[in-house]
Amino acid sequence: MGRTLVYPKVEKNTVHRKSDRASYDLHTIHSIINTTPVLHVSFNSSDPADPFPTILPMIGTMGSYEHPSADLNDPMDCYLHGYVSSGIMKQARSNPEKGLPITVAATKVDGIVLSLTPNSHSYNYRSAVLFGYGSLVEDIEEKIWAMKLVTNSVVPGRWENSRSPPDGAEMASTTILKVKIVNGSGKIRIGGPGDEKKDTEREDVVESVWTGVVPIYETVGEPVRGGAGRVEKVPEHITSFRGEVNETNEEYARTAAAAINPAGKGY
Amino acid sequence: MGRTLVYPKVEKNTVHRKSDRASYDLHTIHSIINTTPVLHVSFNSSDPADPFPTILPMIGTMGSYEHPSADLNDPMDCYLHGYVSSGIMKQARSNPEKGLPITVAATKVDGIVLSLTPNSHSYNYRSAVLFGYGSLVEDIEEKIWAMKLVTNSVVPGRWENSRSPPDGAEMASTTILKVKIVNGSGKIRIGGPGDEKKDTEREDVVESVWTGVVPIYETVGEPVRGGAGRVEKVPEHITSFRGEVNETNEEYARTAAAAINPAGKGY
Repeated sequence: MGRTLVYPKVEKNTVHRKSDRASYDLHTIHSIINTTPVLHVSFNSSDPADPFPTILPMIGTMGSYEHPSADLNDPMDCYLHGYVSSGIMKQARSNPEKGLPITVAATKVDGIVLSLTPNSHSYNYRSAVLFGYGSLVEDIEEKIWAMKLVTNSVVPGRWENSRSPPDGAEMASTTILKVKIVNGSGKIRIGGPGDEKKDTEREDVVESVWTGVVPIYETVGEPVRGGAGRVEKVPEHITSFRGEVNETNEEYARTAAAAINPAGKGY
Repeated sequence: MGRTLVYPKVEKNTVHRKSDRASYDLHTIHSIINTTPVLHVSFNSSDPADPFPTILPMIGTMGSYEHPSADLNDPMDCYLHGYVSSGIMKQARSNPEKGLPITVAATKVDGIVLSLTPNSHSYNYRSAVLFGYGSLVEDIEEKIWAMKLVTNSVVPGRWENSRSPPDGAEMASTTILKVKIVNGSGKIRIGGPGDEKKDTEREDVVESVWTGVVPIYETVGEPVRGGAGRVEKVPEHITSFRGEVNETNEEYARTAAAAINPAGKGY
């Protein structure tokens, strides 16, 4: 209630570049993770000779099984959904004590910032990164809870509006990875272009270059029926999801475009 | 001319899960990278005690300075744009011989696939990953060429329609990281839901669950004027960019939603 928790600022998560855009608030960071359809999850190979981190696009969401009433301002775990035989799950399984070190990133592009000079161009965006240790959820109750949480994070109410709960074979083939978060940070840019005096004072430049923001937002289109279901009318949980996401996304991008740029600068 | 190059399939880049969705074609992979506004770039800390890969959202594009006429089917480098003092650039600078091992990922969500049971839910998506060694572009000609390439990858023609080329201070503060690609892979899912017989044969399930695809696509909104430029009319390079992106994105998502699911299965 009015309490604002932040992730501790240490070298690993400190935003050095454009630090005025940084955020360490749990609520801000968790919101970005939860409104991004696909997370990018990175971890290292078990082969020390492989210098390249793996990056996987994964579906996941923040949640707290111990405190189901936790809100985005509370400490939470990141639950990632995957298949039992995938590489990341195998590595997490072979790392049961400490867990697999995992980095989770989410980025939303909200607009293209077009300034007088290419050097000051930028995006309006929201990005978040979390660092934590991933381990498989073995407890059946927690696993079903997390599967429902992840499903409903894609389309709210979908779990209740499809054939659930999963059967034994489905439980066996699905793996939930729980990432215990140790740290994180967020970065947000809003506002219009920021140019330097050397350009804003040049008549030939300001008279010839259009400046402003082109908003960018994800749109949920008209549902296309397919598959085995015989229900013809698109149900309410889908139409209301569509309406809400479309309104929220477009409004955010437009508001961000028209906002005062707090830093007054490009990138 | 009709030649199809592929990245070599080795353990590191082989798609094991849903391998029917995999692609190793250069053209496919490079297209996904080039149509994604923000890339996720991962690399390891210079501190061996830090177990977490870093993930940065970065702007970048494929290109070939040696063969400027190269198309997406040809071998290309990945050019990433950044600031001179950022961590990734510092690490690349301290790794001049071999370069910094870097993983680049791009993911586009094209639709939510809603099937009879949560277990078969999926996304239609296009994802690509590239592995390579990054080093700073020191040659001035190549650097300007890459800065123009990256700027025009965001909005075609923007370089020519803003105050360019960069001056000395801008050249000094901007760094271009060139990632020499050693390998990569792509993964694409299209089509409607795929459910198993155990559900498609259940009258109670098919009569009660709506199945199909909800297309998802990025929309470029109405430009919002701001900043120092005095041009009022939105110029043609922006309006045509907007029109083309919006038409392409929506059409792809709709077509993918209505396509025959080649695998006939969810996730």
